[in-house]
This record gives sequence, C-alpha cells and structure tokens, in this order.
Amino acid sequence: MADKTYDFSGMKAIFFNGTLERSPAPSHTDHLITSSADIMEKHGVHTEVIRVIDHDIATGVYPDMREHGCTTDEWPDIYQKVLAADILVIAGPIWLGDNSSQTKKVIERLYACSSLENDKGQYAYYGRAGGCLITGNEDGVKHCAMNILYSLQHLGYTIPPQADAGWIGEVGPGPSYGDERDDGTREGFDNDFTNRNLTFMTWNLLHTASMLRDAGGVPAHGNLRAKWDAGDRSDYSNLEHR
Amino acid sequence: MADKTYDFSGMKAIFFNGTLERSPAPSHTDHLITSSADIMEKHGVHTEVIRVIDHDIATGVYPDMREHGCTTDEWPDIYQKVLAADILVIAGPIWLGDNSSQTKKVIERLYACSSLENDKGQYAYYGRAGGCLITGNEDGVKHCAMNILYSLQHLGYTIPPQADAGWIGEVGPGPSYGDERDDGTREGFDNDFTNRNLTFMTWNLLHTASMLRDAGGVPAHGNLRAKWDAGDRSDYSNLEHR
Amino acid sequence: MADKTYDFSGMKAIFFNGTLERSPAPSHTDHLITSSADIMEKHGVHTEVIRVIDHDIATGVYPDMREHGCTTDEWPDIYQKVLAADILVIAGPIWLGDNSSQTKKVIERLYACSSLENDKGQYAYYGRAGGCLITGNEDGVKHCAMNILYSLQHLGYTIPPQADAGWIGEVGPGPSYGDERDDGTREGFDNDFTNRNLTFMTWNLLHTASMLRDAGGVPAHGNLRAKWDAGDRSDYSNLEHR
Amino acid sequence: MADKTYDFSGMKAIFFNGTLERSPAPSHTDHLITSSADIMEKHGVHTEVIRVIDHDIATGVYPDMREHGCTTDEWPDIYQKVLAADILVIAGPIWLGDNSSQTKKVIERLYACSSLENDKGQYAYYGRAGGCLITGNEDGVKHCAMNILYSLQHLGYTIPPQADAGWIGEVGPGPSYGDERDDGTREGFDNDFTNRNLTFMTWNLLHTASMLRDAGGVPAHGNLRAKWDAGDRSDYSNLEHR
Repeated sequence: MADKTYDFSGMKAIFFNGTLERSPAPSHTDHLITSSADIMEKHGVHTEVIRVIDHDIATGVYPDMREHGCTTDEWPDIYQKVLAADILVIAGPIWLGDNSSQTKKVIERLYACSSLENDKGQYAYYGRAGGCLITGNEDGVKHCAMNILYSLQHLGYTIPPQADAGWIGEVGPGPSYGDERDDGTREGFDNDFTNRNLTFMTWNLLHTASMLRDAGGVPAHGNLRAKWDAGDRSDYSNLEHR
Repeated sequence: MADKTYDFSGMKAIFFNGTLERSPAPSHTDHLITSSADIMEKHGVHTEVIRVIDHDIATGVYPDMREHGCTTDEWPDIYQKVLAADILVIAGPIWLGDNSSQTKKVIERLYACSSLENDKGQYAYYGRAGGCLITGNEDGVKHCAMNILYSLQHLGYTIPPQADAGWIGEVGPGPSYGDERDDGTREGFDNDFTNRNLTFMTWNLLHTASMLRDAGGVPAHGNLRAKWDAGDRSDYSNLEHR
Repeated sequence: MADKTYDFSGMKAIFFNGTLERSPAPSHTDHLITSSADIMEKHGVHTEVIRVIDHDIATGVYPDMREHGCTTDEWPDIYQKVLAADILVIAGPIWLGDNSSQTKKVIERLYACSSLENDKGQYAYYGRAGGCLITGNEDGVKHCAMNILYSLQHLGYTIPPQADAGWIGEVGPGPSYGDERDDGTREGFDNDFTNRNLTFMTWNLLHTASMLRDAGGVPAHGNLRAKWDAGDRSDYSNLEHR
Repeated sequence: MADKTYDFSGMKAIFFNGTLERSPAPSHTDHLITSSADIMEKHGVHTEVIRVIDHDIATGVYPDMREHGCTTDEWPDIYQKVLAADILVIAGPIWLGDNSSQTKKVIERLYACSSLENDKGQYAYYGRAGGCLITGNEDGVKHCAMNILYSLQHLGYTIPPQADAGWIGEVGPGPSYGDERDDGTREGFDNDFTNRNLTFMTWNLLHTASMLRDAGGVPAHGNLRAKWDAGDRSDYSNLEHR
C-alpha cells in the first residue's frame, strides 16, 4: 500500500515517448515510463503516455500547423493536455548519442507555443515541473538529458533536483533495457542506480509540482513579458546608467 | 526604490565567475553578474562573487585535496559558502563554444562533494536554486548553459524557469559584452533580450529559493539515499516482480 | 572565371537541408548552401540539394522502412545518391539551440545504414568528406556542428579542417540570414567571417574528397570489420596479455 | 610481428591525458593510450604521452602566459611538440558527463595558438590528423568526443573516419577501465567493441596522417587567411551581388 503522507491527488502528468518504434511494437523507454507513472498513480496522479510516432503531429514551428499548409495536425489537442498537466516528462531513446527526431519534434512544437502566456502574463508553461527519462544500448543518457532539461526550463518549467533517470549498458552493442535474458530476467530491471534515480526523480517531480500548485504557481513578479515591454524593469538597473 | 512586495531578506547568493582573466583585469562576465546581484541586493539578499582563477582551488575529485597530496586548497572554505547560500549562479565565458576550464573545475569540485548529505538525509545541495550567466563573442550561450544547469540539477539544485541569461554578438570576432564603443556606450548593455532574461532569471531564482526556504527545503520523502539502501522503495515497484 | 589549378570535375556533392519550412517557402539555410554549391559547380562538381521535409522519408532505424511497416519511403533512393557522392554536407537551422528534427531524421537514417560495407569491407561511407552549414537567429552554430560532424566521422566520413560554417546574429530575436534590410541589402551576406569560413570549408571539402578519390579511399587495413571478427587484430595487443 | 605493408616510420604522435590524477597515481585513460600508442610504435611512429596535470601549464588564452603575468608556463614548449607531431590524440576521463577541466585547459591553450600560421599561410595545425580517447564509469563517451573532435577540426586538424574510442560500463557506479576484478582479469580489457574501435581509430589516424604527409599537407588554396583578407575570394561569389 502506498505511503499516503503526501497527497498528490488531482494532479496530472504527461509522458512523451520519443521512440522510433510504432505501436504495437514494444518500446524499451516504455519500461521506465511505466515505473515512474506507477508511483504517481499510486498517489492519485492521473498519468497519460503519448507515444509521439503514433500520432499525426505535424513538423513545424507554429502552434497549429493546419494554419500553415498541413492538412492535419494533432498537436493543438496534445498541447491542451500539456497545459492541463502539472508534470511533463520527456522520455526517449538515444540514437548516435543524441535524442531521437521524434523527441526533437516534440520540443520544437512545445517551443512553437512558447510565446503564449498564462493568465498572470507569464509564459504559459510556468508553474509546472519537468523531467526526463532516457534509454539506450550504451552511451548518452546525460547528453540527451542536458538538452531536454535545458529546453524545459527555457520554456518555463521548474526542474526539480535529480530530474533525470535512465539506463544504458556497457559500451558497445548489447541488450537494451527490458530485453529478456537467458535466465528469464530482464536486462536493467535490477540496476539499483536506475531504479533509485527513477524513484527520486518521480518524487521530486511530485514534490515540486505540489509545491508550485500550493503556491498558485511561480509568483508573478519580475517575470512578466508585457510589463517589461511596457517599461517596468522590476529593479533591474542598466549598467550604462549607473 | 525597490519593489518591496517580495521580501527576500536574509537570503544569500554565491556567483562563481569562471573567467580566464585574473584580477584586477576586467571580466566581461562580471557585468552580467553585477546586474543580477544588484537586483538581489536591493531586496536584502547578501551576494558574493568568487572569481575562480583568483583562488587557490585545487584540481581534483575529493572534497579536500589537502588530504590527497595538494599542499593548499581553498575549496573546503568555499564549499561552506556554497552550502550557506540559498542561490548558486555559475557564470563564465565561452571558449570554442564551450565552458572554460575554470568553470569545469568548479563543477568538478561541487560534484566531488555530492555524496555529502544534509540533516534530512538528502544530497547536501537540496533545497537551493541554481542558475547560470554566460558571455562570449559570438556563439554558445545555450550549449554552456545546458551543461551548467544539468550539473546543478544533478547535484540537487532546483532550476527555476528561464534560469539562464547571457550575451553574445553576431557570429565572428567582434566586441565583447561591456566593451566601450566609439560613441562611449557599451556593447550589449542595450540588448533588451539579455536584460530581460537576466531580470527574469534573477527573480525566478529569488522566487524559487524563497519558496524552498519557506517549505523548509524539498520534502524528505522518496529522495533519501540511506532509506533506499535500507530497502525502503517509496512505492517503487520493480517491473520484474509485477 | 574560376581558378582551374585544381580540377575536381566528375565529383559529386549532396547537401541535405534540414529546414522545417516546406517548399516553395524560402529557407535561410539555403543561402549558405547556394554559396557553397556555387564554388563547387564552378569546378565541375555536380551538386544536389535535398530539402528533407519535401521528401517522403520515413522515420525509423532500418535501411528501408517499407520492409518495416511503412507504405512509402524515399530514403533508399536518397541513400544511393549519398553513396554516389564524394562530399556530404548536412545543413540546417537551429531550434532552441539544437539541430532540427529533420536534421536528426537524416542522421538516423544514415546511421541505420551504417552497418553496410563497401567492396573493401570498410563501412560504406569511408572515402568521402563531410561538413556542415548552420543558420539561426542568435545562438548554437557550434553546438549543432559538434553533433553533425561527430555523427559524420562516426559513420566513416573524413572531416576536413574547418568543416563547418554558419551565421547567427546577436543574441535575442532578430532578422535571419538573408532577410531583407530596410536599405535593400540582406542580413548576414556581408559577414566576412561567415563568408570566409564557408569558402574555407568548401575548399577543404574539395581538397579532402579529391585526396581520398586519388588514393582510392582510405587504405583498407586496420579498419575492416570482417577481418577483426575473424581474429585479425592488426597489431593490437590486449593489455591483458602483455 | 607487426604488419609492415604500411610504413609510417618517422611519424610522431602526441597523446594528451586530461586525467585529474597526478602521477604516479594510475590513470584509467592511460590504458587506452598505451594500447593505441603501442600499435603506432610497432610501425615506427614516435609517441609521447603528456599527462596535463603533471605539467605547469598556465590557464589562459595567450600562446605564452609568461607574457601575461604568469611566472611560469610549460605550454610554449609543449606547443612545439604538438606542431612537430603528425597526430594528436586528446584523451581523458568523464566527469558529470563532460570533459575534465584539464582536457578543457589543453583545448583552450591549443585554441590560443590558433591564429598562428604555417609557412603556406594556413592555420598552423593544418596537415595533421586528430582523434580522441575517453574513459568513464558509466556515460558520456560520445558527448566528450563531440567536443574534442569539433575543437580539433576547428583548429585545422583533419578528422579520420571513426576517430574516437572509449570505454564505459553499465550506468551507475562501478569499476573503471582496467580495475582488477576478483578473478584477476581487468575491467573492460575484453570489451571487443572498445578494442576494435581503438584499433580502427589508430589505423585511420595513421592512414590519414600518412596521406597528408605524402601530399605535403592540405593543398594551399581556398584556405589562406592573408589572401582572403587581401581580397582573393577563391571563387566565392557574394549572394548580394548575383
């Protein structure tokens, strides 16, 4: 039975999976997502996993690509889910040491909506917590995480402590996360480091999102685009004039 | 007069400057640091700037390198200042598109102390906010920021929204931030994007650090190394056993 | 009239453009490609530009995705063009400081074919020269180039000296490369650094590809997968046994 | 007995080791260096390993820091060795997913000398081959290699195919390369992928450096700073004027 000291009920989390495999093919990344979402669900958080490649998300840099020549675009609907969620986790595989093209497409579309504002006048993503999960054969968890976490904070997410987790094996080709071994166990599932980091990441996302929810988001001062543009400098003094 | 709606008095901030120039030579990065620290000081935050190259900080991977063959090492004293600060900003220049060796040395020494824990049993850096400031001639603010912000969250810092700021000019050689122009004004000081990002970063560091201070840090559940090692899984279920 | 001391006639070059804009919308990156290809054409090199987003290239990690559930896939035809070319330049825009999803898709598909070998038994891309061209508003040329050039050498390309070029403006939003200014001139076209780097890159690609062509590729010794797998160690001695 | 089909006698190679451990403490990276240098030595190549931290190399951005306030600086002597070598390999450990501060210091000093020219008027490093070797516990070989190889090509080195090699273990803490196991064997020494990549890298460095030596370096056309500055455009046409 889950520890109920902390109550996160009513919260929502979205996990993007940037795998290059279409459903119903299995995704190694999904194992990590399942484990993280499982902890959240035990605490009443509603979770949803969006496998990017299964959706008709247009490539481009506008909020709705149907207004820019694409006949279809599922992104505007997905974007509403992102805004409804307290937590966003971008998960994905490593290819040649870097994030996949599907992971990049999601970041591009999130970025394309970054000029939108919330009702306080902050960038729309403010007041939410972001993290990432990465799987690969051999190398690149941190490189991929650097890019994802940088992107998330740039968009307005708060990044909790230790907000990334992942699994890779020894350098070189080899089994991937969750592949069945000869003895029936699964590759990586017994990796204490991965399991601990995933757990810490999940809890820190919950704690941070909860703290932000309780505070009504990030205080709306010193971070308002319209006020800045209107000349309100929030105590910033130009060095030129000092 | 500073807006006093928000009271951050009693808080402390440390800025590391990873410039390769020794004092008293000027540092372009210092201009950004001064502007950010100035906002903080107006709100009662005690700020201190540590220019890394001016200090006898040993290179290495232990908390105190005097115990590992170095005759001197200022790091243990500086580390105490880091722990005493609510906010840490790692600032520095760009060389060949990447962080300087002085910036890397600071990250190495912070990392060398990362196994130390606070009295709750979390990694010692938990409960603080981290950001970065980058200057260069032409390219690399985001690349450098990715690495610094990733390192800070990995160590246990919370990264607020839009926690980086910086200045670079057009691609190619040219004036650096703060260099005097022919008309007596200074390069970059009138860059609205840099000024706005710096202000937003500073306020978001203050808001986040304040929120963490008010909450007594990050809640101590689901992120405790000793408990994990003792078998407490904080609702994590191994996929192997489900 | 072109300097004809160097004769590169009969050589071929492919430029991939990873822009997110579909034809006939203009692409800022195209300006750089045009300038580089122009030098090559003056020396009898056949050049072709492939704007990735205009083509029905499947997302995935196999040489031909039609064998893996996709109804169409132009990649196998494009791959033949890549193999027929002495020079490959991956060009593209910067989004949030990183390569675009279209650029990543091309790298994924190139990588998906990386186990194929040439008739000497080397990885198929050996014996060719690779470079990159990057455009953006404000930051990230080197970060994007690091990833592209790393990927190309990993696949088997030789990277000439100074094999990247690009343009970005001062930090913050602003005109992009080739945007018309009020006075009718075009942004960036007068940037001496960009023009020089582009020229040096182009010539070094030509020199390197020519040198490799004259030598019949990279000598086939010490780099043959099948021989290694058969136990031929090419003078490598395992430290374990020394 | 070494295969003597290829004769590289008279060539020189420099390996920088960016470990944070001072001699005589062992360095995991040294094992990889030894294996690569061993192949070279079997073919008459003179190799030298420079452990950066053992030398009094000043931090800074000038060719000789003694002219800029440092009382000592071994770099000018080391720089001569770099120029005398046909091959440069930058090797080092991974810290928090990135290159060490010692590795960065070497790149800074190499970069500080990058405006110097050879007698053809090319950047001084032209005509040489560069590669890298990386070791770590768990993650980051490609990230570190991206930065090193990018830096080397930017300086003027030619990067051969597959010019990086390294070893990391499964994600999480664990033994490092060459650590003795319970059965007396050494961690990583039996990793076929590492051994093969190291061998391929070494041979491709030899082939490329040899090809460049035979050709008298990179042809001196289209890549000469002074000619460009004097107005010689080497067939580059400004788009503005077409």
